[in-house]
Amino acid sequence: MTAMAPKNVDWNRFVDTLSGVEVIRDRPQVEKLSKDYYYFSPILQTQLADKTADLVVRPKSEAEVLAVAKACVAERIPLTVRGAGTGNYGQCIPLAGGVILDLSRLNAVKWVKPGMACVEAGAKLAAIDKVTQPQGWEIRMYPSTYRTATIGGFIGGGSGGIGSIMYGQLRDRGNLNAVRVVTLEDEPRVLELRGDDVQQVNHAYGTNGIITELEIPLGPVYPWAEVIVTFDNFMTAARFGQALGDTDGLIKKLISVHAAPIPSYFAGLKAYLPEGCHAALLMVAEPSMELFQELVKEFGGTVTYHKPAEETGKKTLLAEFTWNHTTLHARNVDPSLTYLQTLFPYDPELKLVQHMHEHFGDEVMMHLEFFRVGGAVIPAALQLVRFSTPERLQAIIDYHEANGALIANPHTYLLEDGGMKTINPVQVDFKAQVDPYGLLNPGKMRGWLERMAG
Amino acid sequence: MTAMAPKNVDWNRFVDTLSGVEVIRDRPQVEKLSKDYYYFSPILQTQLADKTADLVVRPKSEAEVLAVAKACVAERIPLTVRGAGTGNYGQCIPLAGGVILDLSRLNAVKWVKPGMACVEAGAKLAAIDKVTQPQGWEIRMYPSTYRTATIGGFIGGGSGGIGSIMYGQLRDRGNLNAVRVVTLEDEPRVLELRGDDVQQVNHAYGTNGIITELEIPLGPVYPWAEVIVTFDNFMTAARFGQALGDTDGLIKKLISVHAAPIPSYFAGLKAYLPEGCHAALLMVAEPSMELFQELVKEFGGTVTYHKPAEETGKKTLLAEFTWNHTTLHARNVDPSLTYLQTLFPYDPELKLVQHMHEHFGDEVMMHLEFFRVGGAVIPAALQLVRFSTPERLQAIIDYHEANGALIANPHTYLLEDGGMKTINPVQVDFKAQVDPYGLLNPGKMRGWLERMAG
Repeated sequence: MTAMAPKNVDWNRFVDTLSGVEVIRDRPQVEKLSKDYYYFSPILQTQLADKTADLVVRPKSEAEVLAVAKACVAERIPLTVRGAGTGNYGQCIPLAGGVILDLSRLNAVKWVKPGMACVEAGAKLAAIDKVTQPQGWEIRMYPSTYRTATIGGFIGGGSGGIGSIMYGQLRDRGNLNAVRVVTLEDEPRVLELRGDDVQQVNHAYGTNGIITELEIPLGPVYPWAEVIVTFDNFMTAARFGQALGDTDGLIKKLISVHAAPIPSYFAGLKAYLPEGCHAALLMVAEPSMELFQELVKEFGGTVTYHKPAEETGKKTLLAEFTWNHTTLHARNVDPSLTYLQTLFPYDPELKLVQHMHEHFGDEVMMHLEFFRVGGAVIPAALQLVRFSTPERLQAIIDYHEANGALIANPHTYLLEDGGMKTINPVQVDFKAQVDPYGLLNPGKMRGWLERMAG
Repeated sequence: MTAMAPKNVDWNRFVDTLSGVEVIRDRPQVEKLSKDYYYFSPILQTQLADKTADLVVRPKSEAEVLAVAKACVAERIPLTVRGAGTGNYGQCIPLAGGVILDLSRLNAVKWVKPGMACVEAGAKLAAIDKVTQPQGWEIRMYPSTYRTATIGGFIGGGSGGIGSIMYGQLRDRGNLNAVRVVTLEDEPRVLELRGDDVQQVNHAYGTNGIITELEIPLGPVYPWAEVIVTFDNFMTAARFGQALGDTDGLIKKLISVHAAPIPSYFAGLKAYLPEGCHAALLMVAEPSMELFQELVKEFGGTVTYHKPAEETGKKTLLAEFTWNHTTLHARNVDPSLTYLQTLFPYDPELKLVQHMHEHFGDEVMMHLEFFRVGGAVIPAALQLVRFSTPERLQAIIDYHEANGALIANPHTYLLEDGGMKTINPVQVDFKAQVDPYGLLNPGKMRGWLERMAG
């Protein structure tokens, strides 16, 4: 599937043309910076284990990014953008070698206004919050890799996370205001995309432009309490999650529901997770806590953990056991486990969730994350799967899709074959415009591969 | 329908027992303070025009409320609580004479915490915001009578309003944290109700306790822009409203959609409402404005008015043309108009809205207010009706209900016959406990009348 290999490049000469830009050529470091958490998938493990860049560059300014772009175009060297490498599908793994553009040093918060910030692509999400929170605003949504992930990587390779129960997904109109993008033309330029034009590069794995700067909307800071509620019965836990999502008067940022035995994988939370329990891991605004307790009572749950807002931020974050961190913790205990990503249809009765839970039993352990899609609360699932063979994994995926549960396949590195399913001609057209030589993260955009082949 | 008349009271002696409490006996003033906006309904006009209290008392403290309660119980005098009298269904009109308890002087903001405030019942909504907004928090939702209405009156007689697109309705769990209630027992007491117990008195028209103090959750302050978008076609305007409601990334506090000729009734907005237009009156957070414009473009709307957040609060509030103020403005032009209150079922395609719009044409002019119900965005309607006869009005109501649109009848002063439809035994039981003589706002709670009759 490698789209193109770099030519026989004189790397010493290449490095010389980048005077002043930090370059990493130490092999172990280059290998490390060529990878993400792709090994969550046994399929991707096989496909991506040997993929490595030739070297890594770490620009500190947009001017340095332009210099790197120019040098790569001149030599037709593939360029793959990297944030913090916290993706799960090889988004930042270079299929064709070449240069890794590590943006983690391009990390300034340029300005903050009420409800908005302008940040460089390599700014870590937690670092942005440190600047904006004292002004009353915070990142609207973040992945479970909040402390390490960069905003550019999240926009380029993520889709949502903690906070999506309030604001939906990153791709939803309103969750990204503007971006600056460096092109890979003969004379690389900086373009500013605003309004719906941001969708040209939003969640495109860095295949059609180098995002250097972003204007992002912020949410108001609430005092967030972290809470664990346990249940004797999984479907009660799931229905509690849906009801909490649907109760408009209760403010929440995270509704993460785990069927037994998933809670047993959370070593750091052992004291709060009785054996055999099903658990909801939650972030609830303090002003909602009192009435939240009434909802817990209605569903017969038990609050086993409540860290008030003034103590959060210290030590473990509960969010670091949710979304894809659930898979991480589970695999720490049992490395043979893998996972799925599933979008259930809108149905407050959760009939299809119940069917899949009962149908697959322990082979596909249910892990729900509730979030907003088109104004309604639905569960996504990041089920843990006891992996046997690729064929069986595919059969599980097929069964879900045949029954109306959309799988955002985490076992492919192809952009369109994950959650999107269809080729987005707008993104392919934009690539044709700004990356005429197909140098950006080659081999990841199926629409481009097909256009080149056709 | 009068439940009981006051006995032959020696009012001079009664006033003497209230030493220190402000008493109003001037007839024109007492008559004025016995009324609300009931005359929006030609049905209620007939039923309530002659209802007047014997006198009005205006306590300044909870202790004074207790003194009034004790005096009324001793003489078995009916007591009807009044906020600012901005209700529309005669909620505060005394059917059996007696005392009006005007709480507008009991108006302190006692404390503010992040996301919460403790306020006395007579505090005006706008006055609460004046205290809390500098701390970053504001009233979650308010009626179009924001500048004059009191929080106690809103909780006692309202159901939602501007902000309900974010937080749902007042009755939803999480939108009222606690209340203090004075009873009408032989020895009146002050009770504190917390958690779900607040539902015993929430939206009960003051029939089962005198709310003196409330703990309310607050929402974060956003910079709200006021916007008018016009459309050539009503259903396009309606679908735009639904889409805006469903776009989770765009932050909004008001989505009010008006079919022609309703915009022509808004004299104060004439410059922004071309003849024959259909219009959406909106409050959108400034950080969402840029991408909001893309949604407007998608639906072919025209932004005719945009008052940036820094200028709102000055002069006219756009919200004062929405919810029940729409009816007020329309009746200023044509006093023969009346209105309905309708809850449409969840249907992003708005099929039933379209049917009713087309079926009734100009007789029932469509006015939609989008809000959240159980996690989903639906339109309520406060249609303007060209009134002919009570029988025709009833036929219009019946047609809606037969087709699945629930009417929250604004042409009845009975608590349960408005939006609730069913008797709430919890509220009736609570009345039996705290108002054993049935003195509080007599004749309004059907459940109590039936219990007494049975």
